[in-house]
Amino acid sequence: MARNDPIQNLIALLARLPGVGERTAARLAFHILEDDNAYAKALGASLSSIHELILACEICANYDAVSPCTMCQDPRRDDSVLCVVAKVPDLLALERLGSFRGRYHVLHKLLAPLDGVGPSELPLDSLVARIQAGKIKEVIVATPLSVEGEATALYAAQVLAPTGVKMSRIASGVPHGGELEFTDQVTLGRALEDRRSL
Amino acid sequence: MARNDPIQNLIALLARLPGVGERTAARLAFHILEDDNAYAKALGASLSSIHELILACEICANYDAVSPCTMCQDPRRDDSVLCVVAKVPDLLALERLGSFRGRYHVLHKLLAPLDGVGPSELPLDSLVARIQAGKIKEVIVATPLSVEGEATALYAAQVLAPTGVKMSRIASGVPHGGELEFTDQVTLGRALEDRRSL
Repeated sequence: MARNDPIQNLIALLARLPGVGERTAARLAFHILEDDNAYAKALGASLSSIHELILACEICANYDAVSPCTMCQDPRRDDSVLCVVAKVPDLLALERLGSFRGRYHVLHKLLAPLDGVGPSELPLDSLVARIQAGKIKEVIVATPLSVEGEATALYAAQVLAPTGVKMSRIASGVPHGGELEFTDQVTLGRALEDRRSL
Repeated sequence: MARNDPIQNLIALLARLPGVGERTAARLAFHILEDDNAYAKALGASLSSIHELILACEICANYDAVSPCTMCQDPRRDDSVLCVVAKVPDLLALERLGSFRGRYHVLHKLLAPLDGVGPSELPLDSLVARIQAGKIKEVIVATPLSVEGEATALYAAQVLAPTGVKMSRIASGVPHGGELEFTDQVTLGRALEDRRSL
């Protein structure tokens, strides 16, 4: 097979997917070749059109086929509480939980100065505007408990402080079923510090 | 998101890939959405056209943009020895090794009566015809050392016997660097039985 042949091209493209190395990409490519053309065509068509069919919601930046997204349009959701998440899969994880019925704000990125994501890249102006519109009483910052997630949460707290809105951060501690013996020191320290009365 | 929305459709299609579950498919789909449209379009176009651009070689059934494939057309390869493999990635693994310079015959399937692959599904008629054409002196059966691979090797030996061609099977034994202590009994038994003189 020549270097620029269609199989090598497909393998190279598949290998750009997260968690897919050269070997997995080759396995996927040959699976696709052994499978019927209809499947390859359907997946190809879906990928080719996905960016045109899916929009980032103009209000919360969630992905949907319509903007504002169905979640922003849903009149049954609670306008008084808003959850800030890093990415859409985090929003979906919270939705699967089912206990949060408020609004969302998706950042799509976290503060990471070394990767070129500075404070100005975070879509916080639109969040301030949403808060100033008046209905939101509490903002729950549900960015991940990583260095970038924590930095983003602290920065968001600074930016939102002038609005006077109540702000909270999801709890950090020993996960359900976790053994203290095998819990890292930062987590254990936080679990102790953020202890709650019984 | 509605059940039949474009994201769910993309996730469902990605989840049909081998080793890709619902969660990984979702991760891939959202990565593709966060990445630029050019990538999604390139991967989409590659998938949509791959079955049209790639043919199974009319001689050996290897995948290539031309038929007969470049390997069958290569006059520098040895016509006297032919290697039977289950799939194209196996052929590529042997090519990476670099020591085999003969011809190939790709089966694309292995005997698996429970999965509906009976003897008639194996492309052995074309292999017999290739042998009868006269140049091939030895057929090396390099199907995997699995139950299906072994059954296929035995069946191929039966079918090819009347041609009188010399047949061989790749060796089975303890892999390089393998500890006897942790080697399964079948492998160890074979390694003992197929011992070679020093």
